[in-house]
Amino acid sequence: MIGPMTEFTPTARSRVKRHHERGAYDFDAIASILDAAFLCHVGYVIDGQPYVTPTSYWREDDRLYWHGSAASRMLRTVATSVPVCLTVTHLDRLVIARSGFHHSINYRSVMAFGEAATIADPDEKLAALEAFVNRLYPGRWPELRPVTKQELKGTTVVGMTIAEASAKVRVGPPVDDEPDYALPLWAGTVAIRQVVGEDTTDPRMIPGIARPAGLAPWRAGEAVDALLTRLAT
Amino acid sequence: MIGPMTEFTPTARSRVKRHHERGAYDFDAIASILDAAFLCHVGYVIDGQPYVTPTSYWREDDRLYWHGSAASRMLRTVATSVPVCLTVTHLDRLVIARSGFHHSINYRSVMAFGEAATIADPDEKLAALEAFVNRLYPGRWPELRPVTKQELKGTTVVGMTIAEASAKVRVGPPVDDEPDYALPLWAGTVAIRQVVGEDTTDPRMIPGIARPAGLAPWRAGEAVDALLTRLAT
Repeated sequence: MIGPMTEFTPTARSRVKRHHERGAYDFDAIASILDAAFLCHVGYVIDGQPYVTPTSYWREDDRLYWHGSAASRMLRTVATSVPVCLTVTHLDRLVIARSGFHHSINYRSVMAFGEAATIADPDEKLAALEAFVNRLYPGRWPELRPVTKQELKGTTVVGMTIAEASAKVRVGPPVDDEPDYALPLWAGTVAIRQVVGEDTTDPRMIPGIARPAGLAPWRAGEAVDALLTRLAT
Repeated sequence: MIGPMTEFTPTARSRVKRHHERGAYDFDAIASILDAAFLCHVGYVIDGQPYVTPTSYWREDDRLYWHGSAASRMLRTVATSVPVCLTVTHLDRLVIARSGFHHSINYRSVMAFGEAATIADPDEKLAALEAFVNRLYPGRWPELRPVTKQELKGTTVVGMTIAEASAKVRVGPPVDDEPDYALPLWAGTVAIRQVVGEDTTDPRMIPGIARPAGLAPWRAGEAVDALLTRLAT
């Protein structure tokens, strides 16, 4: 489902300045990058000091959610309606050019800006956690031991409506200076892939229990970005 | 080569608060996580607004370096001796528990704090760029078309001595509540791997040029973290 907006209007905060031809502000481009990942880096400020914390997140329409312990410094900070920058990056290829200057990286990234707020209502919080588990492991939630009141109290979920966002993407071969194409040098790209690997089963698992249906998408060899994109739609 | 310090003393800024048993402050633990990656997320503040920019970096002893266009907002900001948080994260495994609450992620991350400064001296800047190219592609630098004065002028390299840093690592199987181990539920972990994929050659490359020796470590199927660790030593 697509959010209510179709395009963000870039301001000084979100406009892609360097290589502006790589920038995009339309909601679909931004959502597709966000939906292909579940790890982000959340930036926030305490007393003028920036902090960048890696955490898992999920998207619903134009809102981003993440969660963690109620005692987390990051969550206590971002829940007080402070400005947040949430960045997601996919590393796609090394770009090997004919000069050091034109070496590069093919990537897809999004910087999303907004103010995060705690989800206080317990039912809403529980629904958000269910959405997160089912986003990664479809149908897994009802199989699990139910959440206790104490667990729910000890968990903070924050939601942030995306106020502004920009995507930045580089694709394609190296772009060298015109005379350099005549040089007898190898040039091209090398793919970097994030893929699903092998399982380990918990040594304390009761023997003979099948891998659950919710984990079926996580097959060894699957590209993680494509898998997450399928799960999001 | 190991830097002059063997341990960082955690302060309120760098101490791992949640799951403090996952925290580490010794230099070797931090360096090994940094040396297994080349993509980081740099956090900085402009007018109270946090920004998180993905960029490539490299380490020498207790210093981190990154670079980009002299016109980059990120580089112009961090070069003015403002506080910076540089975070590196490796996503290792999904952790599938018997309750939603104990689902987790195995990861290795470092938050490094300091103040970045531009490397003004052109020779030092050139040496830093050479070190970066050779860190990823050993021996590639001397094969390349040499850097021009204009390119060097248009490139900013910043260095940051790590003032404080902490590592946070989760490994191992899910940790469930004791009674939940009796539940007939699958539990375990699923590996997530970042690996080298296939090459593409630049469509404009002169035919018949061999893949250079500097790219030899980037073989399809190699784990990127292990490859980068080998290149760093």
